[in-house]
Amino acid sequence: MPNLRLALCQTDPWVGDIARNGDEVVHWTRQAVEAGAQLVAFPEMALTGYPVEDLALRRSFVEASRSGLTGLAGRLAAEGLGEVPVVVGYLGRSEQASPRFGRPAGSPQNCAAVLFRGEVATRFAKHHLPNYGVFDEYRWFVPGDQLPVVRVHGVDVALAICEDIWQDGGRVTAAREAEAGLLLVINGSPYERNKDDARLELVRRRAAEASCTLAYVNMVGGQDELVFDGDSIVVAPDGEVLARSPQFEEHLLVLDLDLPAASSDHTDGLLLADGLHLVRAELGGEPADAPAERVRAEVAPRITDEAEIWSALVSGTRAYVHKNGFRSVLIGLSGGIDSAVVAALAVDAVGAGNVHCVSMPSRYSSQHSRDDAAELARRTGLHFRTVSIAPMFDAYVAATELTGLAEENLQSRLRGTLLMAISNQEGHLVLAPGNKSELAVGYSTLYGDSVGAYGPIKDVYKSLVFRLARWRNEEAERLGEVPPIPENTIVKPPSAELRPDQKDTDSLPDYDLLDTVLDLYVEGDQGRDAIVAAGFDPAVVDRVVRLVDTAEYKRRQYPPGPKISVKGFGRDRRLPITNRWRRG
Amino acid sequence: MPNLRLALCQTDPWVGDIARNGDEVVHWTRQAVEAGAQLVAFPEMALTGYPVEDLALRRSFVEASRSGLTGLAGRLAAEGLGEVPVVVGYLGRSEQASPRFGRPAGSPQNCAAVLFRGEVATRFAKHHLPNYGVFDEYRWFVPGDQLPVVRVHGVDVALAICEDIWQDGGRVTAAREAEAGLLLVINGSPYERNKDDARLELVRRRAAEASCTLAYVNMVGGQDELVFDGDSIVVAPDGEVLARSPQFEEHLLVLDLDLPAASSDHTDGLLLADGLHLVRAELGGEPADAPAERVRAEVAPRITDEAEIWSALVSGTRAYVHKNGFRSVLIGLSGGIDSAVVAALAVDAVGAGNVHCVSMPSRYSSQHSRDDAAELARRTGLHFRTVSIAPMFDAYVAATELTGLAEENLQSRLRGTLLMAISNQEGHLVLAPGNKSELAVGYSTLYGDSVGAYGPIKDVYKSLVFRLARWRNEEAERLGEVPPIPENTIVKPPSAELRPDQKDTDSLPDYDLLDTVLDLYVEGDQGRDAIVAAGFDPAVVDRVVRLVDTAEYKRRQYPPGPKISVKGFGRDRRLPITNRWRRG
Repeated sequence: MPNLRLALCQTDPWVGDIARNGDEVVHWTRQAVEAGAQLVAFPEMALTGYPVEDLALRRSFVEASRSGLTGLAGRLAAEGLGEVPVVVGYLGRSEQASPRFGRPAGSPQNCAAVLFRGEVATRFAKHHLPNYGVFDEYRWFVPGDQLPVVRVHGVDVALAICEDIWQDGGRVTAAREAEAGLLLVINGSPYERNKDDARLELVRRRAAEASCTLAYVNMVGGQDELVFDGDSIVVAPDGEVLARSPQFEEHLLVLDLDLPAASSDHTDGLLLADGLHLVRAELGGEPADAPAERVRAEVAPRITDEAEIWSALVSGTRAYVHKNGFRSVLIGLSGGIDSAVVAALAVDAVGAGNVHCVSMPSRYSSQHSRDDAAELARRTGLHFRTVSIAPMFDAYVAATELTGLAEENLQSRLRGTLLMAISNQEGHLVLAPGNKSELAVGYSTLYGDSVGAYGPIKDVYKSLVFRLARWRNEEAERLGEVPPIPENTIVKPPSAELRPDQKDTDSLPDYDLLDTVLDLYVEGDQGRDAIVAAGFDPAVVDRVVRLVDTAEYKRRQYPPGPKISVKGFGRDRRLPITNRWRRG
Repeated sequence: MPNLRLALCQTDPWVGDIARNGDEVVHWTRQAVEAGAQLVAFPEMALTGYPVEDLALRRSFVEASRSGLTGLAGRLAAEGLGEVPVVVGYLGRSEQASPRFGRPAGSPQNCAAVLFRGEVATRFAKHHLPNYGVFDEYRWFVPGDQLPVVRVHGVDVALAICEDIWQDGGRVTAAREAEAGLLLVINGSPYERNKDDARLELVRRRAAEASCTLAYVNMVGGQDELVFDGDSIVVAPDGEVLARSPQFEEHLLVLDLDLPAASSDHTDGLLLADGLHLVRAELGGEPADAPAERVRAEVAPRITDEAEIWSALVSGTRAYVHKNGFRSVLIGLSGGIDSAVVAALAVDAVGAGNVHCVSMPSRYSSQHSRDDAAELARRTGLHFRTVSIAPMFDAYVAATELTGLAEENLQSRLRGTLLMAISNQEGHLVLAPGNKSELAVGYSTLYGDSVGAYGPIKDVYKSLVFRLARWRNEEAERLGEVPPIPENTIVKPPSAELRPDQKDTDSLPDYDLLDTVLDLYVEGDQGRDAIVAAGFDPAVVDRVVRLVDTAEYKRRQYPPGPKISVKGFGRDRRLPITNRWRRG
């Protein structure tokens, strides 16, 4: 069997920055070539970043991507990297598709190309377009109808893009029909909890169906609400994991593959599964014997659930702050668990020296809250200051009559206004501390604690917030570091402290119960009756369902945050604000 | 030729309120039957409201719609209305489609049914699914593949749903092949400026292609950012307008049509254009002669552009307030043009007695601003009060150092906080005064003037805000009423009054120029180079483009508002926040 040394570049493209992303392709290709790679692959739309959303409908951006691609091909050759084929995703357009009402303007396509010897050797477009969850690809793209197969050093390599292997049939079946020796799939596949398990099971199944080795390269980093965890994988047709990249870090995965010698004489245009047409490209190169010294294929160990989630939140936060041009963040530190976890995440994401916190006590703030906030600052070394909101509060209540909830919300809004004032004055990005349980039931104040550009734990249920806090402290102890979160912050009963002796349980069920019901209603899309039938107190279920149903506007106004579940509260969940369907 | 008396019910369904919508169908059907109608039609998804968005993916809601439909059929019969076929849109699901990864869970469909004699005589699903602009129907629905033709009083009536006639081929061509005598199309087609012209041209063209009379019934009202203008139309195959409903009001359009006697003997299952299968239903009824007294078909006169836009903004505002369970609104009245126009719109939408305004002067507020705000209140009779924000401002600047923009934004946020406090205390829905020009370039304050649940003029460029103000005043004079907007508010130069002698033109180009460039960049999706090539100052274009490109987060956080253009700043425009593509 010929040997092929493959390099999967698990990189972090920046949406819209074609020049920077091109530089990165050159940089990583050089490393891959220095490691002896004979075929190099980058993620889906690595040249433009992913997802570009409606930028796909802007002609000038499509053309910039297309000319960026040909420029990149030339540059790779000019820098002595032209003799190794490089697979790179970009934004292209269909030359064939005729403009039609209802089809995306300009017929954009989610494309990939093989760059070789200064030219674009072949190019093709994604066949299966996802249009669910966070994806809107029927809005943005016209599908492709080819199966590209490139012959490299005597091996036939079939190419595919992301969703092409998530849906049945299509390029997986076609790769088997084309007798490919390797199915190479480039991806922009967002993180979800436990998706690494689903992904491994998927690539194993598809390798068996394609009847060949399957190589899967994914991106890392963050883009608005999406986090990409990498986890690039190579599996044999029998399901054996040949190599696997770590999650959440840029990584070059190089390995030697023994692959069947190409023997197919299928010709261009052959009709394959799902209406795909075969398109072949001969890139040359003699079939190589196994090298004297094979690269030791890395199989990165799996990390715990908590470590994975924490890394996703840190990755998402870091990406959002840096890619939006900020260096530092600002957090209102109450002494409670949510802001404490957000501060600890921020310290891990951008460094304690770039984290600024303000304690903003009112007359209802307890001494332990102030102490716990200060203690967290002391443990982590972040910047800390205290500004009382009492004088602002007094000015408002003197000017207009406010009681009950109006008075409670006012305190929260005075804090939001103070955070924004400091942000405007000093240039920090404000992080919002809301968790998924609060967001679900609307237990937060618009323009108050919801103020901020990014909400690091907006997709984390309260019970998981506690679990992560404990995990992070234990992790610190394991590493011989100071646990960042004060014990008292973890053990005391949650309170908004907006009126005397307030507890969250005055307004909400116990969080363990609440989160269980929410998980059935929000993640599981179970109706009220089904949840009651599962054994939950009808009064509790009715209350939770009513709260969730009426909080859509608040959720819509909440800042973006890293999505870690199948159904967060962002682009993956689109409900009407004006809605009379209740108890559903 | 047989005569058929047709009733088009241009109604206002409420999303999610199946019981209420069913009541409305009974109510309007009774009126239609009393007018002698032999066939009655309601808009797209009239039973559930439209669009239901991700509610389509919730099984319990789909089942409620389905059982609501059969219940409605029985109820119509029980109330003596069963002898007239009623066409009504609802949310159904495909029994045939097998569950598949990537397809909407539960295979929901955008359906319509013909209710007759207590039963569902036939049902079918939308064939062409729009997935652009504000539509995401590939996300929500599985397409239908039938052409339903019902024979009523000797006339073959083909049925279609909305997008079925916007895209080429499909049910229009199939209706001709099936030799239909009438093509009846039910719609949930949102308002856009000048869409009534596009709609008329479309139905004329499709009537010619289908080679038969075409009846088009649309909904009215508002749903989140969408406004529905009605404008139901009936055209003859030669394009003659036989009847047309007024825009923006519920309306029963009844007319007598001379239609060709059904003679086709095509049978069920016949394969027609675009893979559609013919499905016939015989509803009986003798072919009728023309009645002695024909109904005089109404052709509602067209209204001016300004009247149309004003009505759309009023409709959208009224619907949003009432359908979300509010009766009254609250507006910060600055004396400037934007809040004045929003107040005048609110008075038209919910009545002066339900409009509460607050003047919130700071040290930089001019006397003329306070006077102009009070004058508007006097002219319209809305509730008016004044609360100075000076003490709150002083409390903040005493607590933390604030200069420049931070100090300007603080004033705006103190006002937002005051509005929300009054809203929480008194229960009014806050309206935000921002216009489209400001939103485009980010010339507003997050959590400040952007506070509110709805922004009535968020899709109205500043130059159009002025035009509408003048039009509304002239309209009042024409009707012998007091013009609502003080002349001084219209003629003085716009200013945010957040620092001494501030003018909008300190920060922005003149609005006429700005709006022209914005229209090319935002509506026209022209790139920077194309706009410069069209003759605009490169420095101005670069500045505008940079402002628009960096304001996405602010726009995302803005409340919804009535969409009046092809590309507003809501669901119809989805751009990444984190985005390094500039000068595009």
